[in-house]
Amino acid sequence: MGLSLAQLISLEVKDDARGGLMVAQIGAGLPFVVRRVYWLHGTKPGVARGFHAHKKLRQVCVCLAGSVRVVLFDGQREESVVLKPNHEALYLEPGLWREMHDFSPDCIFMVFADAEYDEADYIRDRQEFIRYRQGGQG
Amino acid sequence: MGLSLAQLISLEVKDDARGGLMVAQIGAGLPFVVRRVYWLHGTKPGVARGFHAHKKLRQVCVCLAGSVRVVLFDGQREESVVLKPNHEALYLEPGLWREMHDFSPDCIFMVFADAEYDEADYIRDRQEFIRYRQGGQG
Repeated sequence: MGLSLAQLISLEVKDDARGGLMVAQIGAGLPFVVRRVYWLHGTKPGVARGFHAHKKLRQVCVCLAGSVRVVLFDGQREESVVLKPNHEALYLEPGLWREMHDFSPDCIFMVFADAEYDEADYIRDRQEFIRYRQGGQG
Repeated sequence: MGLSLAQLISLEVKDDARGGLMVAQIGAGLPFVVRRVYWLHGTKPGVARGFHAHKKLRQVCVCLAGSVRVVLFDGQREESVVLKPNHEALYLEPGLWREMHDFSPDCIFMVFADAEYDEADYIRDRQEFIRYRQGGQG
């Protein structure tokens, strides 16, 4: 059966009477130094995004507002996890196919990555990804 | 007169028909590798935060939703900048007193920092900060 594909990281919650504060840092919720950040906002109704895997890139995703459903696929098993603003972030290890579905209109989806953009690191074809995983890369 | 204390960084806007996507990475909007991230949300009405300076820490701040007014003070001059979701981030170099005021109820304020939390790096007293800057640290 194996472990869940959706590896959730507990973030540090430092809410107080002033309001909410969430933290992640090296050694506490951030498993790598971040060299690239991006965030999705104002995603149009019915739009799904992602549909790729990375060979080496590691990412941590946080839903900062609204909600989104992330589908993960390792070449054999598929899992789905709904992300909302809470104390959890989703760690995406290399070699995972990911899709984001069901964005709420107010969703803000933040991604921290351990490397700059590199098109050569992407696998954008699902069948190619399955072959890549069968090749003993996973 | 000197340069503005509020150093604004242009982020890469990659909006398309699917929705909004903002990016910053090393070499393009991110002036350092990030070792700590935190974000403020659900700030209560009338609350102001910050009221400290850092000796060494560098930060990049982004307003992801709502709005907030950031007050910067270098020991002599004070400036105020209103941040909203747009293509700009605010770079905070070391040795700047900062305060955040006028959070909108929906404000999400994200901070990327180049080092882990270190209480010894904080100056939390405004008079001490003025003396620190007068001591030739700035």
